[in-house]
Amino acid sequence: MTNDESFDHLREKVTSSTEIFNGKIIKVTHDDVLLPNGSTSKREVVHHNGAVAIIAIHEEHLYFVRQYRTPTEEVILEIPAGKVEKHEAPDDTAKKELKEEIGAVSTDIRKLYEFYTAPGFASELIHLYIAEDIKFEDQALENDEFLDIVKIPVNSLKEKLESGYFRDAKTIIAVQYILLNL
Amino acid sequence: MTNDESFDHLREKVTSSTEIFNGKIIKVTHDDVLLPNGSTSKREVVHHNGAVAIIAIHEEHLYFVRQYRTPTEEVILEIPAGKVEKHEAPDDTAKKELKEEIGAVSTDIRKLYEFYTAPGFASELIHLYIAEDIKFEDQALENDEFLDIVKIPVNSLKEKLESGYFRDAKTIIAVQYILLNL
Repeated sequence: MTNDESFDHLREKVTSSTEIFNGKIIKVTHDDVLLPNGSTSKREVVHHNGAVAIIAIHEEHLYFVRQYRTPTEEVILEIPAGKVEKHEAPDDTAKKELKEEIGAVSTDIRKLYEFYTAPGFASELIHLYIAEDIKFEDQALENDEFLDIVKIPVNSLKEKLESGYFRDAKTIIAVQYILLNL
Repeated sequence: MTNDESFDHLREKVTSSTEIFNGKIIKVTHDDVLLPNGSTSKREVVHHNGAVAIIAIHEEHLYFVRQYRTPTEEVILEIPAGKVEKHEAPDDTAKKELKEEIGAVSTDIRKLYEFYTAPGFASELIHLYIAEDIKFEDQALENDEFLDIVKIPVNSLKEKLESGYFRDAKTIIAVQYILLNL
């Protein structure tokens, strides 16, 4: 599936867009669309600049951060991740978040693939990286970030996955990637 | 990771919430939060009632829907999925969406696990199901839904996954699940 395929019988067209909210993380618009059959509908759209997530492996352990997420009202275990700032290359965001969140510096970090998290209502695209050959330094968290670093042995990931222990999409993708590839 | 563990050094508390938008799919609030260290911050929150997604397998093929997604401005291949309506049990949503989107009726549908799609800004929780023993009837799409049914042989999923062909988080989770378990 690439952008350059034409599926004109599926495409809808935004005919007008009303900005509802323009925040630091998301912008929300309420759009009028023209459907493929010529009728109209409304779409609720959350615009997001994209994010990175990093599979960080060191000495047979996968690294996570545990943090409270206000939207879910729940403490969640996730792989390190963060929003891509405007005019920032995702490769740079990945290195920055790895250092900020778990204090890791990697000499072998590369992109695996990219995916939308919730294409039905949000534009967020996550660039997924894997980082190996890691050295640890200090965390460098932002002022409003509170998180624990958690490491889990690679050989216990399968059992935890099957028990429903992981509750975050990008984290399940990372864990399954490791089980398929390492 | 379950809800009943206490991580008080990580938790933040919403002290006031301003409703920005209340649509058919999402509600958006701008919240003031009290951080674990006593200082304050703001959170942008997209409230969503949750969704289901279904791994539908029939005669060694995995079933997908191809549809245009306005937020991503892209035609995307996804496993069948849909929003859980208020007062609807996810098990019922899963059966309904399977019928609506790909015309499938399954006598063996069961839940695998659940995950948040974008916990940094949205509350959406996806309940992931697997459906086998499928019979096909007619699609029963809603008025503003336009989608193609696509089936892909299970034995070609690995190559497609590694090439970056799949661009949707729940769909990558489904494909990896099949590669790990079937």
